[in-house]
Amino acid sequence: MTDRKRLRDLGVEIGSFPCGPDNSITDIGGVKVGHQTLHYEKNGRVVRTGVTAILPHGGNLFREKVFAASHVINGFGKTAGTIQIEELGVLESPIMLTNTLSVGDVMKGTVEFLMEQCPEIGDTTGTVNVFVGECNDGYLNDIRGLHVTADDACQAIRNARSGLVDEGCVGAGTGMLCLGYKGGAGTSSRRGTVGADEYTVGALVVANFGRRRDLSLDTGLPKEEQEVPDGSIMIILATDAPMNDRQLKRLAKRASFGLSRTGSYAAHGSGDIVLAFSTAHKVPHQPDESNTTTYPFIKEDGELISTLFEMAVECVEEAIWNALAKAETTTGRNGRLVEAIPPELLAGLRK
Amino acid sequence: MTDRKRLRDLGVEIGSFPCGPDNSITDIGGVKVGHQTLHYEKNGRVVRTGVTAILPHGGNLFREKVFAASHVINGFGKTAGTIQIEELGVLESPIMLTNTLSVGDVMKGTVEFLMEQCPEIGDTTGTVNVFVGECNDGYLNDIRGLHVTADDACQAIRNARSGLVDEGCVGAGTGMLCLGYKGGAGTSSRRGTVGADEYTVGALVVANFGRRRDLSLDTGLPKEEQEVPDGSIMIILATDAPMNDRQLKRLAKRASFGLSRTGSYAAHGSGDIVLAFSTAHKVPHQPDESNTTTYPFIKEDGELISTLFEMAVECVEEAIWNALAKAETTTGRNGRLVEAIPPELLAGLRK
Amino acid sequence: MTDRKRLRDLGVEIGSFPCGPDNSITDIGGVKVGHQTLHYEKNGRVVRTGVTAILPHGGNLFREKVFAASHVINGFGKTAGTIQIEELGVLESPIMLTNTLSVGDVMKGTVEFLMEQCPEIGDTTGTVNVFVGECNDGYLNDIRGLHVTADDACQAIRNARSGLVDEGCVGAGTGMLCLGYKGGAGTSSRRGTVGADEYTVGALVVANFGRRRDLSLDTGLPKEEQEVPDGSIMIILATDAPMNDRQLKRLAKRASFGLSRTGSYAAHGSGDIVLAFSTAHKVPHQPDESNTTTYPFIKEDGELISTLFEMAVECVEEAIWNALAKAETTTGRNGRLVEAIPPELLAGLRK
Amino acid sequence: MTDRKRLRDLGVEIGSFPCGPDNSITDIGGVKVGHQTLHYEKNGRVVRTGVTAILPHGGNLFREKVFAASHVINGFGKTAGTIQIEELGVLESPIMLTNTLSVGDVMKGTVEFLMEQCPEIGDTTGTVNVFVGECNDGYLNDIRGLHVTADDACQAIRNARSGLVDEGCVGAGTGMLCLGYKGGAGTSSRRGTVGADEYTVGALVVANFGRRRDLSLDTGLPKEEQEVPDGSIMIILATDAPMNDRQLKRLAKRASFGLSRTGSYAAHGSGDIVLAFSTAHKVPHQPDESNTTTYPFIKEDGELISTLFEMAVECVEEAIWNALAKAETTTGRNGRLVEAIPPELLAGLRK
Repeated sequence: MTDRKRLRDLGVEIGSFPCGPDNSITDIGGVKVGHQTLHYEKNGRVVRTGVTAILPHGGNLFREKVFAASHVINGFGKTAGTIQIEELGVLESPIMLTNTLSVGDVMKGTVEFLMEQCPEIGDTTGTVNVFVGECNDGYLNDIRGLHVTADDACQAIRNARSGLVDEGCVGAGTGMLCLGYKGGAGTSSRRGTVGADEYTVGALVVANFGRRRDLSLDTGLPKEEQEVPDGSIMIILATDAPMNDRQLKRLAKRASFGLSRTGSYAAHGSGDIVLAFSTAHKVPHQPDESNTTTYPFIKEDGELISTLFEMAVECVEEAIWNALAKAETTTGRNGRLVEAIPPELLAGLRK
Repeated sequence: MTDRKRLRDLGVEIGSFPCGPDNSITDIGGVKVGHQTLHYEKNGRVVRTGVTAILPHGGNLFREKVFAASHVINGFGKTAGTIQIEELGVLESPIMLTNTLSVGDVMKGTVEFLMEQCPEIGDTTGTVNVFVGECNDGYLNDIRGLHVTADDACQAIRNARSGLVDEGCVGAGTGMLCLGYKGGAGTSSRRGTVGADEYTVGALVVANFGRRRDLSLDTGLPKEEQEVPDGSIMIILATDAPMNDRQLKRLAKRASFGLSRTGSYAAHGSGDIVLAFSTAHKVPHQPDESNTTTYPFIKEDGELISTLFEMAVECVEEAIWNALAKAETTTGRNGRLVEAIPPELLAGLRK
Repeated sequence: MTDRKRLRDLGVEIGSFPCGPDNSITDIGGVKVGHQTLHYEKNGRVVRTGVTAILPHGGNLFREKVFAASHVINGFGKTAGTIQIEELGVLESPIMLTNTLSVGDVMKGTVEFLMEQCPEIGDTTGTVNVFVGECNDGYLNDIRGLHVTADDACQAIRNARSGLVDEGCVGAGTGMLCLGYKGGAGTSSRRGTVGADEYTVGALVVANFGRRRDLSLDTGLPKEEQEVPDGSIMIILATDAPMNDRQLKRLAKRASFGLSRTGSYAAHGSGDIVLAFSTAHKVPHQPDESNTTTYPFIKEDGELISTLFEMAVECVEEAIWNALAKAETTTGRNGRLVEAIPPELLAGLRK
Repeated sequence: MTDRKRLRDLGVEIGSFPCGPDNSITDIGGVKVGHQTLHYEKNGRVVRTGVTAILPHGGNLFREKVFAASHVINGFGKTAGTIQIEELGVLESPIMLTNTLSVGDVMKGTVEFLMEQCPEIGDTTGTVNVFVGECNDGYLNDIRGLHVTADDACQAIRNARSGLVDEGCVGAGTGMLCLGYKGGAGTSSRRGTVGADEYTVGALVVANFGRRRDLSLDTGLPKEEQEVPDGSIMIILATDAPMNDRQLKRLAKRASFGLSRTGSYAAHGSGDIVLAFSTAHKVPHQPDESNTTTYPFIKEDGELISTLFEMAVECVEEAIWNALAKAETTTGRNGRLVEAIPPELLAGLRK
């Protein structure tokens, strides 16, 4: 899409762990990402929005759930689906991200998608819990127009694939702002070896927070800036390390440490939500007859879990920089224009 | 609607506090309740569902919010909107209840209703947080058909009124089961005097939990029963006592004490969620220039808050019995029939 | 000790599941209970207090931890040690119960006991987390005198044994009040068969809550009562079912359902805390070299976990009634006298 | 004590808000800090520990409580007293900090101090809730010796005063390590003007976390380091802004953003706990007859609370650097030596 460069292509490295092959959440085997981007004008309405879907695996998520946990950094947000994840420790739907007022439509579309995949839902078995996160893109996007349809949600899921992920002004990131510049979607990953095992942690963010003066860069530029509203960030963490829901919640809590290093302090008006999942185990919806299940999980007494925490901090920070790095200057409703961050600013980061 | 009698009309009283004039959540001044009932067959689909809206006051809820708090008794549920209520301590939308798979549609309809009321939402101010609770009515209702529309949600809001509330098989209660009998919507209230002041606490429930053998009645009958799925309960608590969000959370936690006395133990598969709000103060969305606000709240050191807790326990229990008492025998999909509880059983309660 | 009878010996049964052999928390294999009772007068100070220790197993708890979780029903209390249990999901000390102002001394004594058992604590490994719960026995006991010593805590641990547990005015229960009568320690258990497996759930409570008018008994007597302060309850749940910390937290939350059925509504002034643990697995402090651990845990999709919930509700209720049943009329400071509940009242329960 | 310089005296400023007069938590009017330092050898035991007391005001804290909230960043710790603070939203004791195994003794001493101040505790009124936080100083200190006595706790309280606070190896900071260097106690403050009002936020930390390689400084030095255990941090936040308990919890959550900027990622083994309080209101233990209280609190809709969040982030970070800056090279048990951080390293921070 864009020829803007990711942070590493600008010569900047964050932290000490190596990245996965694509420096992406899709470096965790099986994880797929799909965007549905809505960028058009119609009848005078300026549409800058979309949907991003993250699939923990390519199979049937309702029938094969994954361990998951959420964490609320700041709860001025409308994310749906966390109550059941907290109670049961598993995720049973794609992870859907969109704009704030379209949560209902995206929930509906995702329910329809899952009902089509699973005729048993609501008939011979129970219902399904859908996770939908959001940020407010109403500065650029005609958010009141509710332009995202249930079908857009399904399309984002169908678009999901492995390998390199589009970043910047795509999917749910289309209309977002971040640190006074154009924000969007970004991703990054880290690999770490502990004992005989290698694990990967990846992050995907939709970055929509902060003002230019919060930026943890010495820009050398005057910090005059547009008056933009408080924003938010959605942070999705994936790992192939076998972590249970409590361990994943611990991992999710480290996201704020990466977020902090970009300059955020989680302003009042932000809805900063983290969802973490592990691809190591698939939990069947209809299990066998036995009374117990047996899954290996990482131990919490050595260096291992701390290493995973550190990897999470690094890749959350870099995913945010990548969102900024790849996002392009965008015009929106009311003639508003939000600039892309100058690459030379990012190139000067922590030199 | 139905000529079935409420619990008190069967000669049974719960607890020691007097009821409000209508023994209803609408006894709290300003509170309105509206149902949109979907009970029909169409193209072979059996529709037994609906929407119930509870309005903390009759004005503009986005512009004049109320203090609120939620509590999760058991989180196997899909309720949306609690994250922001927990962070900010206020509710800014009608409280919407429906079936599990229609949360998305009801959220969309409520967003549309509020955008129509408030042109500033998503334009010159931020977005709006909508609370939608749900129970699974899929045993009787063709829940996969997603028969509830966004407009049904708006209609439930428009139907809201003060005074006597329809109970039983109405609104979100249309297709619910409870304790092996036909469940539904129910309400009750309590009045208590502390010092110079009189306060009212009211509950409205959509009761969809439990099997016949859990019933805390000695029915004297054999307890053979249909094989029905685990269900849930949504509990809405209202009070005119000036309680802040922390105090309301404490109140909300007492709901499980009332629930317990009907026989529930919050089975694994239930999504048992409580939302409590106070009508005592209206919190403006756009406040004046000063840095502080000053609201009186009840003190927590005397008998007062314990009295309110006790009132909440009593009216939650009675609201559940009223839901059962007023619900009528109902046929549903797959030729299923669920009986109304025999009045004589309820009449024998705690004699 | 006392010839007062337990509830079942008065002809009353609670619930539908059978009890374990001793109807006691010690029916869970390996669990031991010890009391250190302080009942004396000295220099005009009236001492009615003590310590109760529950040992999840008879070995070294620091080196072999158990899965555990806590739940706060109402947090007006001073229980120590829950933060680490919530973070890590394991318990590594005996469970200690005492009076409110003696938490410090009991913590110190338990630390000393564990340091003696484990020379590595604070030297070659980290420190140790001690759980101490409490209720306020200051109505009868000279609580300001801090009569419980660190050595009393050690002695309670050393007194711990399997088999029948003393109930009523013993250990931490010595000076407690409950529902307007003399309270104390009580215990009960339930056995349930699911599939091929039989599991036991047991409760031990120190019951110190409620006024006579809250009692869920129709006593037929006038309810004049002493003006006694709000009290609390400590509820310990044990099971041999292989439950992880999240599952144990779900179990712990059901304690309020049993508590409710005795008449409690968790008054403002109560510190109502639940701790649940499973004896199924021992988690080593110094594990082997591998990166993962593998423990079987119960599945959450069938009847199994609901059955365990129901068993917990039943045995919490009965443990409370046993505390009342076995407690004897006691005089305390300031010439106060608190009566034991008349057995005939309990005998009339739910007939 | 030491002639080592604080961060600002080394020419480094953190953030954009000005400091209070002493750049200290005591810049919030009424707040006092006292240390009791135990630094000696006796019978071959090397004692490097102590107690730090923070008093929200100089009066009787039990009779005049302050609004407060806690937040657990990572819960591998033994802090006591948070359950009641979470339930009731107020703090009623000095804030006590010490080593991990001395929590019991410090709790006892503080209870004794408060009982002496308040003869009504445990007699004519209820009991008292004491907050005790801790870090593990067992690398340098003979922590198994339990050298801190109940009287040391009282002495720390009696030592409390306004004005400049000793930092580094004093009080609870005596034996702590941080980022591979000698850690300890540190403090900082920020002032901000919003509308017509000026508010101050201050932090006091006991910093005991991290390894040298985590340090967010480009030290230019090889990062070989001693093998030291995972550590923790206790963070106390004070403000004169009128914040209620929910708002203070939001403030407390921002502490991790300041912590992150020093290089921490909250390793597995850390007990990272935050306590925040406001001095704006004194909540009486025995209130007047009315049913309600009326306290002004800050509004959450403008820039105000975000400004306070940002101030908190800045002063937490600087308090940590001050702890390092002021701590001196220290020898401890087993002949261990931990170096003070070279001032020139700190002087290079963010230049």
